[in-house]
Amino acid sequence: MSERLSQQLAFLIEADKLKSVSRASSLSDNSRKENSGEHSWHVALYALTLAEHAEPGVRIDRVIRMLLIHDLVEIDAGDAPIHGDHDAEALALAEQQAADRLFSLLPTDTAVEMRALWDEFEAAQSPDAVFAKSVDRMQPVLQNLANGGGSWVDYDVSEQQIAERVGAKVARGSPALWEHLRGLITAHFSAR
Amino acid sequence: MSERLSQQLAFLIEADKLKSVSRASSLSDNSRKENSGEHSWHVALYALTLAEHAEPGVRIDRVIRMLLIHDLVEIDAGDAPIHGDHDAEALALAEQQAADRLFSLLPTDTAVEMRALWDEFEAAQSPDAVFAKSVDRMQPVLQNLANGGGSWVDYDVSEQQIAERVGAKVARGSPALWEHLRGLITAHFSAR
Ligand SMILES: [Ca+2]
Repeated sequence: MSERLSQQLAFLIEADKLKSVSRASSLSDNSRKENSGEHSWHVALYALTLAEHAEPGVRIDRVIRMLLIHDLVEIDAGDAPIHGDHDAEALALAEQQAADRLFSLLPTDTAVEMRALWDEFEAAQSPDAVFAKSVDRMQPVLQNLANGGGSWVDYDVSEQQIAERVGAKVARGSPALWEHLRGLITAHFSAR
Repeated sequence: MSERLSQQLAFLIEADKLKSVSRASSLSDNSRKENSGEHSWHVALYALTLAEHAEPGVRIDRVIRMLLIHDLVEIDAGDAPIHGDHDAEALALAEQQAADRLFSLLPTDTAVEMRALWDEFEAAQSPDAVFAKSVDRMQPVLQNLANGGGSWVDYDVSEQQIAERVGAKVARGSPALWEHLRGLITAHFSAR
């Protein structure tokens, strides 16, 4: 048991590094860029708060677990801004290698379990993963709306591009959420 | 439904401010102080990872939900360092007022539910709350061990004071966790 605990604590200390991974989106008061650790907390709180908008059958506690671990691979692979350019294949490989390294810090049974949960999130096919992806895409939109445009301004993103890159994924998890969000986005762009 | 969603999004944008509340403990690489948003993510991951060390009957997903919301009141009341001096009565009042304000941003049913969960955490009596408190106290210990002393150095804290202020609460949630941690703490202080 002490050996298992040592492995678990090593994983948790390694996870601390996610707080030093910077994202493209900023805090809602625009004081600084958000990091992937606090983003992970925020999206888990999104899932908890917006649970009623998930499709029937979605198990919100599994969604929350997914969101707690969904960005850990960025410790090695970094954050790839959704509106930035990146080599999708190279990134996927780097993330797979990061998952191999990070989850294997854990005792084997837990490592297998967490890896399976991360793989499920990445595959974005199960109802739980689809809703997790939906709130993960929603949160930076809300941050940008709150701080006057944020990464949309930095990356010169149009309303149309947001609909394509973000809308489809949010809508897949919850049409109602996207409907509401689309109204807010249109209002934001009309006011610019 | 759109009215409910507006309330939920207002709550989530308000929650963003937790990322700007600074704590006494530092990141494990000592690069800066930790904030309460990323701390909330980290302790939720602690609960998920260390679930097997909880007493039988503890529902880890409820523990995780508690930990996601446990520090929200700090948006108004600030973080009270465990090794610092503070007026416990005034702080408790400020936190109650913060809970009143923050949770009431939500639709009434969700507000009542989340407030009950936060009250349960604060009361620290139910098995779920006791385990949540246990990992909440553990995490800064691990941060301090990783970064060479951290807030123990800043506040001139002795091994004996850690045992009194932290040990009892960690041990209440899991004697095995405290046993292991005590060994690490003793090794740290012997090596100074
Ligand atoms: Ca805390």
